[in-house]
Amino acid sequence: MVETKSIPILLLGCGGVGRHLLRHILSCRSLHSQMGLVLRVVGVADSRSLLAVSDAAAAAAAATASMDDAFLAELCRSKSSGSPLSSLVRLGGCQLFTDSEAKGKIIDVARLLSTSTGLAVVDCSASSEIVDTLKEVMSLGCCVVLANKKPLTCAIEDFEKLVFHFRRIRFESTVGAGLPVIASVTRIIASGDPISRIMGSLSGTLGYVMSELEDGKPFSQVVKAAKSLGFTEPDPRDDLSGMDVARKGLILARLLGWKMSLNDIKVESLYPSEFGPGSMTTEVFLGSAISQLDKSIEERVTAASSKGNVLRYVCVIENSRCQVGLQEIPKDSPLGRLRGSDNVVEICSHCYANSPLVIQGAGAGNDTTAAGVLADIIDLQDLFK
Amino acid sequence: MVETKSIPILLLGCGGVGRHLLRHILSCRSLHSQMGLVLRVVGVADSRSLLAVSDAAAAAAAATASMDDAFLAELCRSKSSGSPLSSLVRLGGCQLFTDSEAKGKIIDVARLLSTSTGLAVVDCSASSEIVDTLKEVMSLGCCVVLANKKPLTCAIEDFEKLVFHFRRIRFESTVGAGLPVIASVTRIIASGDPISRIMGSLSGTLGYVMSELEDGKPFSQVVKAAKSLGFTEPDPRDDLSGMDVARKGLILARLLGWKMSLNDIKVESLYPSEFGPGSMTTEVFLGSAISQLDKSIEERVTAASSKGNVLRYVCVIENSRCQVGLQEIPKDSPLGRLRGSDNVVEICSHCYANSPLVIQGAGAGNDTTAAGVLADIIDLQDLFK
Repeated sequence: MVETKSIPILLLGCGGVGRHLLRHILSCRSLHSQMGLVLRVVGVADSRSLLAVSDAAAAAAAATASMDDAFLAELCRSKSSGSPLSSLVRLGGCQLFTDSEAKGKIIDVARLLSTSTGLAVVDCSASSEIVDTLKEVMSLGCCVVLANKKPLTCAIEDFEKLVFHFRRIRFESTVGAGLPVIASVTRIIASGDPISRIMGSLSGTLGYVMSELEDGKPFSQVVKAAKSLGFTEPDPRDDLSGMDVARKGLILARLLGWKMSLNDIKVESLYPSEFGPGSMTTEVFLGSAISQLDKSIEERVTAASSKGNVLRYVCVIENSRCQVGLQEIPKDSPLGRLRGSDNVVEICSHCYANSPLVIQGAGAGNDTTAAGVLADIIDLQDLFK
Repeated sequence: MVETKSIPILLLGCGGVGRHLLRHILSCRSLHSQMGLVLRVVGVADSRSLLAVSDAAAAAAAATASMDDAFLAELCRSKSSGSPLSSLVRLGGCQLFTDSEAKGKIIDVARLLSTSTGLAVVDCSASSEIVDTLKEVMSLGCCVVLANKKPLTCAIEDFEKLVFHFRRIRFESTVGAGLPVIASVTRIIASGDPISRIMGSLSGTLGYVMSELEDGKPFSQVVKAAKSLGFTEPDPRDDLSGMDVARKGLILARLLGWKMSLNDIKVESLYPSEFGPGSMTTEVFLGSAISQLDKSIEERVTAASSKGNVLRYVCVIENSRCQVGLQEIPKDSPLGRLRGSDNVVEICSHCYANSPLVIQGAGAGNDTTAAGVLADIIDLQDLFK
């Protein structure tokens, strides 16, 4: 048999993606064991606190300390029902740290394990404040896996520090959930094949909205249906603003080596600024404001259709520019044919000049996103002892 | 700056793919240097002989010995014009080994470098005899990168030995050239997401033939046109037999863990056995025999079309079975829409249940295949010192 290798994991963020990741880790125990791997969760943090294996356990057996599987399963159940991590301390074997103490403890664990077994710090939060912690654990020699887009889309200096040791960071799930978009772009770059263009529909929500509009439904009705299907954020304007797509575009553009910031991206919002969260509540927006947008959007759908095109909300990365917004797309193209909430990405390069490399599939969902994070962790295995 | 890491490479096979790989390595020097990598070619073999850095050079500086770039460029030029490797010895710094001596030297180099820097043995040949050498270099701790399908499609025991140390072998370019098919399947497996079906058009040649047939052209004319465009093997029956697709299907099926051999695959040939290479020359086949097939193929195209379908030559991997042959496919599906020589692969799993993960793009060509091999080599970097 292959020797068993241990990958200690410290999970930041215990929402939908984080909990699915823990469940995937538990259900893959025997699969990973066949691969000669054991994934050991040594700490789980939410926005308020950190639960970590106790110092005594860690000191006694740095190479084996781990939260046990029954505890992790209970943690998932407990967090699903809204309980704080502090409610779990009674289950023993763990220590609770809160606020600034939690941040210090994360660094302590990183320092302890970086020189022994290695550590993968996995960020499934949605926080932009975590970036300093991530930079510090990277500088200590740990690995980082991100589902969280924020650390890669804040200051360019932060991005550059995070990706400086490129082999120790993975972030497939920040773009297209589990779809192999980052992996493909990275492979193409490594082979010296110059990428000239990346174009895609990178939001499952907006993909769904655009293909429903094509069927002649009013914009307001489609958005409300998407919300009730659970396809949107609690405030659908978080999707309709295009900022989430812009962050994904920025990550891809920066991956191509472009020194670009979120401000450099031309982003088209699907609602005017006077309908923004600063001016009205979600209820008012959905209740009365949004229907005022129906006519202008219908006109654009009709104008596209009259030329044999369809309207898509796309991200285009080309000629050192990144643009995000509505575009008329030929019906008979991968983007034009897209239906429902699938993502699609077209990559053009020297090797993929005549017809692009196309990657298409489910690009959202906690389950799929967590699967992408897990694949990233496994892909780091050569860096662990 | 990142520290520089060295990846010694021993190239087996110096045909179209091998030469493109050498050219890619040379043209990526500054890119790889920015990534902290230097790819050092320590030996190049063709079917007759091996040119390797001299023992003196190797002993003096095992960590730096390499063929120099001017020599590698000359080697590419020389092999393109059909000269044997032996004609290059006069350029100095290298030693020539022939026949069994060459095989022994490959193992010597592998033994020497496996314990110091590591070695990537890169098989761009089309030989089935190389498998013993590859197993031996793997057992010595070296890495293997394959564009050659044969070592993975012979005996299941050989396959299992080669992939036993799965992190030390890469073979993306054996299926779909540079398309990230193997990488995607491997990621999905690692995340515990069970794959229920893989279906694809895995031959650029047969993809081209099938989409031309759709336009009403006779089979014989399409095949002859494909040959004159350089889309087929010198004897087009090597493509039309479906065996190349079957090998790709077998690699994917074995990757799913299925203990299967080439004999277990149901393969539909596009010509009857009485038209085979044992019965007639390529000239006779193309000159008079093939046109006898036009009518029956036209009937199948028409039958498909009358149901709104198109005929595709596909590989289906499902329910522990792998089948390769003609199928009627809905016009309005990724496979049905395929035109020209692109490959397309659809992967269904738990995460990609409602709509498959689709990967599409150029799946042939020496340039693209070599780019995939180079990306595989770079992906092994964590295993080198």
